Amino acid sequence: MDQPAPQPSAPASIKIQPIGIIRSCFPEKFGIPRQPGLVPDATGTIELYDWIASDSLEGLEQFSHLWVFFQFHKAVARGWKPRVRPPRLGGNKKVGVFASRSPQRPNFLGHSVVAIQGVDQARGLIHIGGIDLLDGTPVIDIKPYIPYTDSLLHAAEGYAPKPVHHFDILFTPESEQACTKYQSQHDVNLQQLIRQILQQDPRPAYHKDDRTYGMRLWDLNIRFTYTSSTITVEHIHKSPT
Amino acid sequence: MDQPAPQPSAPASIKIQPIGIIRSCFPEKFGIPRQPGLVPDATGTIELYDWIASDSLEGLEQFSHLWVFFQFHKAVARGWKPRVRPPRLGGNKKVGVFASRSPQRPNFLGHSVVAIQGVDQARGLIHIGGIDLLDGTPVIDIKPYIPYTDSLLHAAEGYAPKPVHHFDILFTPESEQACTKYQSQHDVNLQQLIRQILQQDPRPAYHKDDRTYGMRLWDLNIRFTYTSSTITVEHIHKSPT
Repeated sequence: MDQPAPQPSAPASIKIQPIGIIRSCFPEKFGIPRQPGLVPDATGTIELYDWIASDSLEGLEQFSHLWVFFQFHKAVARGWKPRVRPPRLGGNKKVGVFASRSPQRPNFLGHSVVAIQGVDQARGLIHIGGIDLLDGTPVIDIKPYIPYTDSLLHAAEGYAPKPVHHFDILFTPESEQACTKYQSQHDVNLQQLIRQILQQDPRPAYHKDDRTYGMRLWDLNIRFTYTSSTITVEHIHKSPT
Repeated sequence: MDQPAPQPSAPASIKIQPIGIIRSCFPEKFGIPRQPGLVPDATGTIELYDWIASDSLEGLEQFSHLWVFFQFHKAVARGWKPRVRPPRLGGNKKVGVFASRSPQRPNFLGHSVVAIQGVDQARGLIHIGGIDLLDGTPVIDIKPYIPYTDSLLHAAEGYAPKPVHHFDILFTPESEQACTKYQSQHDVNLQQLIRQILQQDPRPAYHKDDRTYGMRLWDLNIRFTYTSSTITVEHIHKSPT
């Protein structure tokens, strides 16, 4: 429907004040699932800043899932690109950035749906699971997931159908012991978390070699080796601080 | 999982540059559906600004639906509130703003999923349908809807199950003729659009009287009267400009 419309004037910039910060198991980008929900055991916390009154969380516990809006803050320094290479296209075909979820986009904005695991209204904390969020990510808004309006099961999936991977994941006796020890000290199923992450194949799309990789989770360094369709977790060590 | 984490420092503000602007059938708030997708015939256009290279839209036509991220620009002047009265609770119960989709939220950010009706890459235009967006809304990002990660059919819906309304909608001979005339001049099914909007019951939650209301669509003024479960569209006139 065409109609006379005033020409858009030069857009005024919009100032956004972060409402909180993400604390997550992912201190670095490598290993982060490419979308939320793929790694249920990946957990974290949204810590609200003091300028947000804690009663703004009232009633959130009625919902099971939450949209988190954030800035891909580590992407800002690299700038945005009109065309990007999504991992789902093998990393060697380009599409327009607005046909992708790439962080290298104008304004570097992200949105993820996560599971609500607990709301601590008094302390301004929300415990979340199934996350794909880097530790330290600035949060600019949160909203309840509302299925009747957000869930479109039959939307066309373009080049991004649900990914299917299958790897056999083995732990060396040493890395299995390291998991057991860590789990006795922390309330986390580390071995299951590592399995879920590696099953997503965190290797870069252009770089699917059989070799050894390192990934960080909290203060741990995890080393694992690809051999065809088998991944062996070799070592788990504390990171030097 | 508790671990020592550095205290969040005072958050730096984030500067957002709008990427485009919404042109929509809704020149004012009254009549806008409360969520996207409820009024399929409500259409509009995203006009990208010149600073966005047109090849950033390449490949978007593979998808059927789009997330639009925007600012509720008309809400900014009123400020945000920690607790709000959602229409779905009858407008008389409060919840925390983060347990709602209210525009009166910190940063005034909105997100809507809309149907992609056409991508005009050369001119930087995206034609969209099922919108709940005010004309002139600043757009800060767009992303393809990806069902495997965005569609959670079984998420808990809290206080917001799918709304069910039913009204009998009648047109006076005069208003029916006005629709026919408008439709002969514009590529739009005005009568169907009006039916879809009125079926959503645009009246404020606290104000469900049987009386006459006025609503604007493009340059038209539409007057309609509620009588119990019947709505009669009385007049359709051009707005004075």
